[in-house]
Amino acid sequence: MVTYEMKPGRNFMIRLPKGGDILNVIEEFCTQEDIRSAALWGIGALDKAVIGFYDGKSGEYLPITVDGPLELASCIGNVSMKDWKSHVHLHAVLSDREGRCYGGHLMPGSVIFAGEFYVRSLTGSPPERQPDAETGLSLWSKGEKS
Amino acid sequence: MVTYEMKPGRNFMIRLPKGGDILNVIEEFCTQEDIRSAALWGIGALDKAVIGFYDGKSGEYLPITVDGPLELASCIGNVSMKDWKSHVHLHAVLSDREGRCYGGHLMPGSVIFAGEFYVRSLTGSPPERQPDAETGLSLWSKGEKS
Amino acid sequence: MVTYEMKPGRNFMIRLPKGGDILNVIEEFCTQEDIRSAALWGIGALDKAVIGFYDGKSGEYLPITVDGPLELASCIGNVSMKDWKSHVHLHAVLSDREGRCYGGHLMPGSVIFAGEFYVRSLTGSPPERQPDAETGLSLWSKGEKS
Repeated sequence: MVTYEMKPGRNFMIRLPKGGDILNVIEEFCTQEDIRSAALWGIGALDKAVIGFYDGKSGEYLPITVDGPLELASCIGNVSMKDWKSHVHLHAVLSDREGRCYGGHLMPGSVIFAGEFYVRSLTGSPPERQPDAETGLSLWSKGEKS
Repeated sequence: MVTYEMKPGRNFMIRLPKGGDILNVIEEFCTQEDIRSAALWGIGALDKAVIGFYDGKSGEYLPITVDGPLELASCIGNVSMKDWKSHVHLHAVLSDREGRCYGGHLMPGSVIFAGEFYVRSLTGSPPERQPDAETGLSLWSKGEKS
Repeated sequence: MVTYEMKPGRNFMIRLPKGGDILNVIEEFCTQEDIRSAALWGIGALDKAVIGFYDGKSGEYLPITVDGPLELASCIGNVSMKDWKSHVHLHAVLSDREGRCYGGHLMPGSVIFAGEFYVRSLTGSPPERQPDAETGLSLWSKGEKS
């Protein structure tokens, strides 16, 4: 297990702008506020969702596009450093008019209808993502700079 | 984007009472403890769930009733001010005996079997909900009092 | 309602080890760091999931095994005391290659592919689980030691 003990940072409640790409919008917010490490959570609705399923064989996320309107029933994620930039990692559960759910790794192209997030920034040495040979993912690692 | 920087408030772990209406119970708790702004999360089980899907055309939540027993696989939300009162906004993912999921905006009529929530209150000027013409929703806004 | 007001404790971002049993791994971490009370959240992917649906009649969790690979679309939970030990209670939503979701109470046998968790420990008198006659569950109670 790789563990990072962090110190409490700032606390934000944010309302996301209609029409924005959810990952872009949050990444810009983090860059602007110099948030290098955070936990974040949100609810709302999306006009369109692109969710990824990680395929271990190809080492790629297979995108699943779900046309909206959709409720954003759950969105949980974190901010850490990747290539010396604030990187946002979010997983989401969307639900449709019948309540049916779609879940996965949130990808670019997911368009906000409405969104309310709580961002809890953390300070201290932020986790940094490095390529991980075992999974093919970019994971938090310590002292294994590639 | 509308952002609110908040200060850390109080921290509660709460066990919800069997048979209570989840939104009522949490709203009463917030009123009693004078919580005007918070992030909250919970897990548990429900005897019955009413989840809403927002229909942008009618500007109304279409209710979906799911009879229990159901696991409350996820519940994420926030507290902010609406009409000068503490207002609780929760989204939930429920799951049935086969693990099948139902998600959406939690509505009145959702009955607790068991529930364990973590409430993190925030202080400072709380977000306030105002009618939003673009979406038809009641959203956090600044200086646009209706 | 049973409420516990807690004080802020330590903050951890942790990366779970591939191949580990998610409940074991987190329970060991809590024991090692002497975490008796916490809220925690995670995302990632599992090689296999065992999720439970609580059957009120038998008073047992019916296990549902879902073979992976699966995205861990949401994982929310808490740490409290049970039988004088740190006890981890997690609910999860998993999603498959088509984005289809499976949710419930996370059970032993759920195997990590990758996992990123935020653990917020809380201090003060931790909630303690005691058998609850009304639900058949082990719930937070005060002064009703069995």
